[in-house]
Amino acid sequence: MSDARSPQRITVLGAGSWGTTFAKVLADAGRDVTLWARRAEVAGEVASAHTNSAYLPDIRLPDNLTATADPAAALEEAQAVVLAVPSQSLRSNLERWRALLPPGVPLVSLAKGVELGSLKRMSEVIAEVAECPPDRVVVVSGPNLAKEIALGQPSAAVLACADHERAVAVQQACSNSYFRPYTNTDVVGCELGGACKNVIALSCGMAVGMGFGTNTVATLITRGLAEMARLGSKLGADPLTFAGLAGVGDLVATCSSPLSRNRTFGERLGRGDTVERAQSAAGGQVAEGVMSCSSIRELAGGLGVDMPITDAMYRVCHEGGDLRSLGAELLGRERKHEWS
Amino acid sequence: MSDARSPQRITVLGAGSWGTTFAKVLADAGRDVTLWARRAEVAGEVASAHTNSAYLPDIRLPDNLTATADPAAALEEAQAVVLAVPSQSLRSNLERWRALLPPGVPLVSLAKGVELGSLKRMSEVIAEVAECPPDRVVVVSGPNLAKEIALGQPSAAVLACADHERAVAVQQACSNSYFRPYTNTDVVGCELGGACKNVIALSCGMAVGMGFGTNTVATLITRGLAEMARLGSKLGADPLTFAGLAGVGDLVATCSSPLSRNRTFGERLGRGDTVERAQSAAGGQVAEGVMSCSSIRELAGGLGVDMPITDAMYRVCHEGGDLRSLGAELLGRERKHEWS
Repeated sequence: MSDARSPQRITVLGAGSWGTTFAKVLADAGRDVTLWARRAEVAGEVASAHTNSAYLPDIRLPDNLTATADPAAALEEAQAVVLAVPSQSLRSNLERWRALLPPGVPLVSLAKGVELGSLKRMSEVIAEVAECPPDRVVVVSGPNLAKEIALGQPSAAVLACADHERAVAVQQACSNSYFRPYTNTDVVGCELGGACKNVIALSCGMAVGMGFGTNTVATLITRGLAEMARLGSKLGADPLTFAGLAGVGDLVATCSSPLSRNRTFGERLGRGDTVERAQSAAGGQVAEGVMSCSSIRELAGGLGVDMPITDAMYRVCHEGGDLRSLGAELLGRERKHEWS
Repeated sequence: MSDARSPQRITVLGAGSWGTTFAKVLADAGRDVTLWARRAEVAGEVASAHTNSAYLPDIRLPDNLTATADPAAALEEAQAVVLAVPSQSLRSNLERWRALLPPGVPLVSLAKGVELGSLKRMSEVIAEVAECPPDRVVVVSGPNLAKEIALGQPSAAVLACADHERAVAVQQACSNSYFRPYTNTDVVGCELGGACKNVIALSCGMAVGMGFGTNTVATLITRGLAEMARLGSKLGADPLTFAGLAGVGDLVATCSSPLSRNRTFGERLGRGDTVERAQSAAGGQVAEGVMSCSSIRELAGGLGVDMPITDAMYRVCHEGGDLRSLGAELLGRERKHEWS
C-alpha cells in the first residue's frame, strides 16, 4: 500500500503517560504531531524542553512533537485525532471538542473502559458524541505499558477498526522500529478486553497483597480471561480476540507488572487498606478497575453473563465486602469440568 | 459420586519437588501415600523426619506420607500410581518398574515434555511401556509451581483423561482445602500445553536477561500461546484447552515466576551465558525447555506447523544462533493482520 492515504499531521488529545507516549510513537514514525495538554505548563514544557517530567520523567521527546493547551490550535488541520483522556471523562471532553474536530478524519481511541450509566464502550461514546459512523473510530489495545514503550522497548499492539483500510492507514502512521501494530476488525472484543483487564488486574493485586503467589495470580488471569470471553461472545466479539494481544496479551502485561496502577491499587486493598485509603495513597486517583467493575457488572448482569471475579471486585470496592471470605468463595466454587 | 471408586492407597514415583508436593497434596486429601525416592537418604528423611530438605526446605510433610527407595515395596498394593520423574528419563524408569505395576490401576502423569527421538507425549510413552489402554493414563497440568502448593497456597489444576470417570476418581483423591482440580477429556491439548510452555518460558527469560520489560514478555506469552494452539489443533486438541488452566494458566505461571527453572535458564542465556555455562550454574541440569524445543520443533516441522519462537529457541540452544539477531527477526516479521 502506498503511504498516500496515511495521515501525516496528527493530534493527540491528552498528555498523560499513554497519550504522551503514543505521540512519541507517531513522531518516531515520522509524523508531525501536536500534543494537547490540559495544563499550560505541561504543554509549555513539552513544546520547549521536549520533556513531560510529570508523566514520563527522563524521556526525551522528539523534535517533530509539539504541544499546546489550546484545543482549537491543536486540532487545526489535523489529519487524524487521537483521544487519550480517561474513559469516564471522555464524553465531557469530547463534547467540548466536537465542533473543532476536522470532518472525516480517523478518531483513534486510547481509552479503555465501559462508561458508567450508559454502559457504552469508548468507541460507542466517540461515535455518538462526534456524530460519526462507527467505522471512523480506530481502537488501540495490547500489552502496552507506556513507560516501556517510551523507552523504545519493542512492543506489539492491535489497531481495531470495522473499516480494515482505515486501520491500515493508522497502522502505517504509527509503525516504527520499536512499535509493531497489527490490525483487527473486532472492535467489540478489543475494547472489552481492554476494559475487563483492569478489573482482573485489581483482583491479582489483591491476591498478591493477601500473600498469595504466582499460581493464584495465574489462575485469576485464566479465569478472568474466561469471564471476559463469555461477555464478549454475548456481545458479538470474536473469541479469538481474547487469545490475542488485546486479550491475553494486555491482561498478562497489566496483571504482572508492578507498574500497573490497577494491580498496585488492588495490592493495597489486599493488605487491608480501605478504598479511601488506597485512593489517597494513589494521589487521590481511583484505579480504573474500581469504576469499570461497576459498569461491567451491570452490563453482564443485563445479559445474564456470569462474571464471578468482576462481581467479587464490585462487592469489595463498592459494598464493603470482606476480601477473605470472597476469596474463599471464588476458590470454593463446586469442583467440576473446567468448561462446564 | 460416592468415594468407593476413588483410590485410597497411592504411590508416587519420584521425590523431586513436584513429586513430593503432589504426594503431600494426596496425603492432605486423606490418602495413604508412599513416595519412592531414588536415593535412600531422601527416602529415609521423608519416612523418619517428614521432610525433604533437598527439594522442599522448611516444609513439614504429613504423617500419612511414608517413603522408600525400593520400588517393589512402594508399588505393592497401590491403587493408583503417580509418575513424577523427568520426561526424558520416564521411559527408562518405567521399563524398570513395568513388572511391578499393579494391573488396572490409574497411571497419573506429572511429566511434561515431548520425548526426543520418538516425538511422543508422556501419556503415549506410558501407555506404550506399561502396555495399557491410553484411557488408563491421567495427566496433571495447570499453573502449579510446586513450592507454592507445598506451602498450602490455593491452586487450581487440570486432570485430563479420555475416560471421564477415571479423571473424577483421581480428582476426588487429590482434592483438598488448597488444591482444586478440574477434569478435562482433552489429553492431547493438556500435554502439549505443558510441554510447549517450557520453551516459551525460556524465551521470556531470555528477553528479561536482555533487558526487555513486561510488554515484550506479555507479547512472547501471547504469540507463544498462538503457536502451541496451532500445533495442538493439528494434533486434534480442543482449542479451548489452550485458553484454560493447562494452557494460558500454566504458561503464565511458568513465564512470570522467578522460581521457574526454564525462565531462570533463559535469563542466563539472555545475559550472554553459553548453554554450557547456564547448565553448570544450574547445578549441571539443563532446563526442560532446552530439550523440548528440539523435539517440539521436529514434531511441528513434520506437520508443517509454523512455530517461530520454538524455532528461535532451538537455534539459540542447539545451533549457536545469535540471540539479538533472532530477537530482531521475531519482532521484525511482516506487519499484518493479527491472525493471518
